[in-house]
Amino acid sequence: MNIPEEVTIIEVGPRDGLQNEKNQVPTEAKVAFIKALKNAGIKEMELTSFVSPKWVPQMSDAKDVIEAGLDSDRNFVLAPNRKGIDRIYDTDVKHVAVFVGVSSSFNKKNINKTTEESMNELQPIIKELKEKGYFVRACISTSFYCPYEGKIDPVDTVALCSQFVEFGVDELSVADTVGMANPLESYELFDRLHNNLGDKVLLTGHFHDTRGMALANIYACLQAGITRFDSSSGGLGGCPFSPGATGNVATEDVVFMLEQMGIRTGISLTGIAEAVDIINPHISRPIGTESSHD
Amino acid sequence: MNIPEEVTIIEVGPRDGLQNEKNQVPTEAKVAFIKALKNAGIKEMELTSFVSPKWVPQMSDAKDVIEAGLDSDRNFVLAPNRKGIDRIYDTDVKHVAVFVGVSSSFNKKNINKTTEESMNELQPIIKELKEKGYFVRACISTSFYCPYEGKIDPVDTVALCSQFVEFGVDELSVADTVGMANPLESYELFDRLHNNLGDKVLLTGHFHDTRGMALANIYACLQAGITRFDSSSGGLGGCPFSPGATGNVATEDVVFMLEQMGIRTGISLTGIAEAVDIINPHISRPIGTESSHD
Repeated sequence: MNIPEEVTIIEVGPRDGLQNEKNQVPTEAKVAFIKALKNAGIKEMELTSFVSPKWVPQMSDAKDVIEAGLDSDRNFVLAPNRKGIDRIYDTDVKHVAVFVGVSSSFNKKNINKTTEESMNELQPIIKELKEKGYFVRACISTSFYCPYEGKIDPVDTVALCSQFVEFGVDELSVADTVGMANPLESYELFDRLHNNLGDKVLLTGHFHDTRGMALANIYACLQAGITRFDSSSGGLGGCPFSPGATGNVATEDVVFMLEQMGIRTGISLTGIAEAVDIINPHISRPIGTESSHD
Repeated sequence: MNIPEEVTIIEVGPRDGLQNEKNQVPTEAKVAFIKALKNAGIKEMELTSFVSPKWVPQMSDAKDVIEAGLDSDRNFVLAPNRKGIDRIYDTDVKHVAVFVGVSSSFNKKNINKTTEESMNELQPIIKELKEKGYFVRACISTSFYCPYEGKIDPVDTVALCSQFVEFGVDELSVADTVGMANPLESYELFDRLHNNLGDKVLLTGHFHDTRGMALANIYACLQAGITRFDSSSGGLGGCPFSPGATGNVATEDVVFMLEQMGIRTGISLTGIAEAVDIINPHISRPIGTESSHD
């Protein structure tokens, strides 16, 4: 099997992982967590998001987190709309994440717009961001399954991804939001994306471990030529629909598997464990730590 | 990719899963669990084991479990030595499991014999069992890694498996006892076993989910032509070295992935959830249930 020598991990714990945490995590803890992740070797990270503090109070300290966390790495800040983008312009952030669901029902539940409405809003925003020299990451949710619509036609996912490439994004993070994708589906979708768009955009797999399939899906993606994966240290970020269930695949599990396979990640497992130990006391549900795996 | 249309699950919960449970599980609960698993569609199962009741009091009711659980399916009873085999002869059991570790250190810690001593003892036993018409399953532990010796040379695992085939066993259950195998290693070992022994013996993969890699390993084994997997409902049977850590891969996770991939297992997820609900109150650590995955 043709496997890559190196894989890039995009750590999403500080943003995607904390976004649904019901405890208000102190800003200092977030900053310490971020710094520990960087010490562990993380070079790309979702730092925080500019969402409405009314809807997501957890992210109300975004500006402080950015100020403390920004450095020369790829530090993404999520902005779901025009308002968020305008707040980006007030900072030194250079890497912006936008998101949209392939499923219109999901998109509507999340941001009260159809997928088409979101795309119409995003097109000029992305054009503007690119003209200003920003790196744009598009997070594609419900790429395989939707909690409301069920199975998503891969043709629709590929079409949406292609549209984003036309808009000029630099990266597509293609997500199995509900953790239902199986490795055959992952291989098929990512093989198609790799063949159609692989030379025009960075392709990133984003998997949830809800049914224990995350690493199987990542393995299948490696076989399809994918070398970038989102993950969350400690598996932070349970699916909000399923209390106690695992959500984002844990960074330590991905790194362990890859390194065992002889694939370099540049990330220290001890370092990740230290980062998890910092954030753990602030999280309302038990989260995985490297040490619980020994 | 060439994937099989059908896969056989060998349920190991009642034996391997319960063996290290510190609560003494009432015999009636075990029997109800076994019957529920059969109702769910399980056709091959490790029922119990004839080990010393002094060392493993959990299995002291083996005879009663066998009496209640035997039917026309493949119901395995584990017998680690001559004494256990003699007890098998006093029952109507027709499917016997024996075990040995590729790692001599592991084997010695478990049954106080080197691997070679175990093989010397097992050779005449297996010959006798085959002459009497028994089905013999050999469980090969530490096939990839050993907690004492570290990485195991696949050459040694293949050699031990070949020796068992010469002895006349019907099935090899090749286990990643410590949950450290990665999918590349699984593919390599099982591809080799499949090519060398696949026409002479049933080959079964036995994986632990300690590091979240079980389903990735099973997916890799499917690619190597393997169509039989051990699993434990509810993920029963944590690794005794690691309290709270997941051990055996959960039957419901394997079945879910396979069925989603269009591979028939003949097993009902609802039925497995019902079986887990029966055994759950008797288990000292929280175990996974299908419903916690929804």
